[in-house]
Amino acid sequence: MKLDIKKPTLVLDKNRALRNIEKMALKARRSKVKLRPHFKTHQSARIGGWFRKYGVSSITVYSVDMAEYFAKDGWEDISIAFPVNLRQIKKINALAKNIILHLLAESKESVCFLADNLKYPVNIWLKIDTGYGRTGILWDEAPEAVELAREIEKADKLSFCGLLTHSGHSYHAKSKEQIKEIYFDTISKMNSIKKAINGAGFDDVQVSVGDTPTCSVVEDLSGVDEIRPGNFVFYDVQQMNLGSCVQEDIAVVAACPVVAKHKERNEIVIYGGADHLSKDSFVLKDGTDAYGYIALQQETGWGSALENSYVSSLSQAHGIVKVDKRYFDKIDIGGILMVLPAHSCLMVNLLKCFLTLDGEWLRP
Amino acid sequence: MKLDIKKPTLVLDKNRALRNIEKMALKARRSKVKLRPHFKTHQSARIGGWFRKYGVSSITVYSVDMAEYFAKDGWEDISIAFPVNLRQIKKINALAKNIILHLLAESKESVCFLADNLKYPVNIWLKIDTGYGRTGILWDEAPEAVELAREIEKADKLSFCGLLTHSGHSYHAKSKEQIKEIYFDTISKMNSIKKAINGAGFDDVQVSVGDTPTCSVVEDLSGVDEIRPGNFVFYDVQQMNLGSCVQEDIAVVAACPVVAKHKERNEIVIYGGADHLSKDSFVLKDGTDAYGYIALQQETGWGSALENSYVSSLSQAHGIVKVDKRYFDKIDIGGILMVLPAHSCLMVNLLKCFLTLDGEWLRP
Repeated sequence: MKLDIKKPTLVLDKNRALRNIEKMALKARRSKVKLRPHFKTHQSARIGGWFRKYGVSSITVYSVDMAEYFAKDGWEDISIAFPVNLRQIKKINALAKNIILHLLAESKESVCFLADNLKYPVNIWLKIDTGYGRTGILWDEAPEAVELAREIEKADKLSFCGLLTHSGHSYHAKSKEQIKEIYFDTISKMNSIKKAINGAGFDDVQVSVGDTPTCSVVEDLSGVDEIRPGNFVFYDVQQMNLGSCVQEDIAVVAACPVVAKHKERNEIVIYGGADHLSKDSFVLKDGTDAYGYIALQQETGWGSALENSYVSSLSQAHGIVKVDKRYFDKIDIGGILMVLPAHSCLMVNLLKCFLTLDGEWLRP
Repeated sequence: MKLDIKKPTLVLDKNRALRNIEKMALKARRSKVKLRPHFKTHQSARIGGWFRKYGVSSITVYSVDMAEYFAKDGWEDISIAFPVNLRQIKKINALAKNIILHLLAESKESVCFLADNLKYPVNIWLKIDTGYGRTGILWDEAPEAVELAREIEKADKLSFCGLLTHSGHSYHAKSKEQIKEIYFDTISKMNSIKKAINGAGFDDVQVSVGDTPTCSVVEDLSGVDEIRPGNFVFYDVQQMNLGSCVQEDIAVVAACPVVAKHKERNEIVIYGGADHLSKDSFVLKDGTDAYGYIALQQETGWGSALENSYVSSLSQAHGIVKVDKRYFDKIDIGGILMVLPAHSCLMVNLLKCFLTLDGEWLRP
């Protein structure tokens, strides 16, 4: 039975999400690395629960509040993979009291503040920059990392746990080959700085890496201790264009009502704008920016993306869809278009409630 | 007293917002046009209430749900300025039963559906395209508009109310002069199609226009019946760059914790990414995209935007801020940066709860 959609709605193909989770969990097991998935992508206790049956017991989040939300749901080993937000020290202490909490540091200021203010033990990872250039200690600045590791070990409540990186530059790769190169380059740089830290007398230094492109494309992920991909649970058009997944892996769409049609320019207007899809985009072959591909609703979900058709612009509530002539007359005002998202994490954060293909609502 | 910010927080300077409302309300009164402000920008019953003391009793929203929210708060004259979403006919009927509801139509399909399904009277506006090219009947296709007006008048529950347009192309103007030209061009096109409709036997055809750039820049707005700007309540950097406002009119910022610093590249990392600020942007003089300007927190709010400093990139939770060397050492890890938004409507939709400079929370 077709879902009865009233307004922009996040539709989830649960089977695809489960398949994506299973595939990553099996790969991690084969590679003998811990899968510590990033839950920022779904931000849902219900969906988080699906990971448990694939042996996942440790998770990643980006904020103290997200850690609090999942801790309430029974997760007892949570890594906040974001430079620690000192202003939330009270909540951090409350979490550290109850769960195994991992925090990220990259500056002496943060480490000293934690040393002075933490009341319960936490694990500290040093954030390393292996080439993305967003944040972290540069991988070839080992003395800085060693100094910080020493500060951490001096502090009563802090345990130096290891080195963590996010190779987000994999999102700018031009081929699967390049994505693989970035992964092996990351591993090599992480092991280089690990060696220096070992040399300074630190044992048991763990290495944590993880981004969906490399974890999806590389077959053997061994050589690190844990991986932290997040987006893979749903994937999206950006990931498909990178080669991280195929279209049939994309597990979420925004179902959007059709409100107007303009035959003279093969454009369809949907109720679904930047407030629903986010303004993240991808680039078409001809250099045009697009905000999603579109598919028709089917009894069992949605069909393949319509060729030569895409969301071409967004205002706050309007989406403008360029539709290939072949499909134009198949789409009616009052009907539904399914938008395959440019970036699922941002769309999910906006729409929040999931409707599964069985008609079940998953609310935060 | 400085606000105690813990995480990305929407901070509102209430006095600025009130001044913005008052200015637009006075201009509308002087011009003898009705101000029907678009409430999509704040989506807040509390802030909506502030408009009442400036004589506002009619409002605009973009969705049936937003209309429902404000109707519950006592607004009795609401226009949903978005091509009518037929899939929400049940809620539309519930609204039409209780308030003066205005809907937008631009196709025979929508009008016929409403004629068949409406149980209570509504006012119908024809959406006209005066050059934006997003949606609506083209202003020079008067016969199409006349035909639709006749369909509307035939239907028992529908009253043909007038012609409505949104000159969103004002957002692409290069100067105030161009914005004014767009306004007068819009008025002239709207009056041209109005004349044709009058000629076909329709009296009392109202004209509704409105977008923040033209309504801010044009001094005398007479010549139409109502204006529907929305963004002006808060303004933002996009509007400032257009010349719709000056920096001191911007009434909302995102207060974001500083979590890391990179002196070698004059970059500061804030907790505040696409999940908080939205990925809407503006273009700097050198062609670079930016996602916000930054200012320092002050006892009474925030200071002027720091020269040569801006949010240069966003991931889901991280904001990267390029900071002029002069200011770098004044900003500490654990401190706060205030982000003047590229586009306030989208940022407000993400952050939802406002914190006023008096420390009061306004929740949806």
